[in-house]
Amino acid sequence: MKFFEDIAAVDRVELGRHTFTADDIKAFARRYDPQSFHVDEEAAARSHFGALVASGWHTAAVWMRLLVEHHRREADAMRARGEPVAELGPSPGFRELKWLKPVYIGDTVAYATEVVETRASNSRPLWGLMTIRNSGVNQKDEPVISFISTAFVQRRGPPKDKP
Amino acid sequence: MKFFEDIAAVDRVELGRHTFTADDIKAFARRYDPQSFHVDEEAAARSHFGALVASGWHTAAVWMRLLVEHHRREADAMRARGEPVAELGPSPGFRELKWLKPVYIGDTVAYATEVVETRASNSRPLWGLMTIRNSGVNQKDEPVISFISTAFVQRRGPPKDKP
Repeated sequence: MKFFEDIAAVDRVELGRHTFTADDIKAFARRYDPQSFHVDEEAAARSHFGALVASGWHTAAVWMRLLVEHHRREADAMRARGEPVAELGPSPGFRELKWLKPVYIGDTVAYATEVVETRASNSRPLWGLMTIRNSGVNQKDEPVISFISTAFVQRRGPPKDKP
Repeated sequence: MKFFEDIAAVDRVELGRHTFTADDIKAFARRYDPQSFHVDEEAAARSHFGALVASGWHTAAVWMRLLVEHHRREADAMRARGEPVAELGPSPGFRELKWLKPVYIGDTVAYATEVVETRASNSRPLWGLMTIRNSGVNQKDEPVISFISTAFVQRRGPPKDKP
C-alpha cells in the first residue's frame, strides 16, 4: 500500500479479471447465498435470470480479493525498491452498491478502482481516509457492479504543526 | 416469501444468530479477503485490531445466508398451510453499509431486518419493491454492521386498472 500522502485523487488502478465458473458460483452461493438461481442450473433456467448467475455478494467479494492481491503486489514492488510500505487500515463501510447486470457462467469481470477523494482523519492523526469508486465490467463492456468505499490509509508521519 | 401486498412497512424479523469461529473467519478470508488480520492470528495480534477479526464482507455474507434461510422457513410454513408462495426477485443493490465494530473470534452476531418502505415497481407491473434496513448486533449488544437494501418481491397479481 502507498502512503496516504502519495495517493492522488485521480489514481485509477486496473485490479485484474475474474472468470466466474459454475463451480465457483455454486461454491460461494451454497455457503452464503443459497438461492436456487445461484446453486441450481435447472431452477435458474426457470427463474427471471434464465440461467445460473453469481450471487451479488460473490461479485463484490471477488473485488475484495483482487484489491488485496493488488496491494500485495504493490507492497512487494515497494519492498524490492527498498521503500517503506504503508498499512491499509479498516474500512468504515461502503455506499451506493449497485448490481447493474447479472453475472452468468463464463462471464469475465474486469475490476477497477479509482480514488475520488483523500482527506486527513480528524480522530486518528496517523491515518488518512481515501474514498474510492469501484467497478466491475463484463467481457461485453457492460458494467455489472459499482460501489463507493472508504478506507483508512497510513500516513508517512503525523501532520506537522503550523509554525 | 410473502407477497408484496402482505408486507407492511413495520415488519421486523429476527433472522437468527451466527458465531464466528476462527476456522470460519479464515476460510472466508483465504478465499475472498486474505488480509493478514483476517487469516493469521499472530499478525492480527500486531495489527490495529489486536486479534483476528472477520472480513466485513463475511459479516455481510452471513446476513445473506440467514435471510435466505428465513425465507425458506417462511415458504415451507406457507406451503404447509396450503398458501401460495411469492418469489423474492433480484436486488438492485445496497446503500450505507457500515461496519461499526470489528467481529472477533467467538463473537455471536444476531441479525435482524426491518421493512422501511414498500412501493410498486414502475417498470415491472408484476413486482413490487421493498426497502429493508438490516443490522447485526454482537453478544454485548453492540451494532457491528448495518445497511439498507432494496429487492423486488412478487405481487399477487398485476395492479388493478382504475374503473
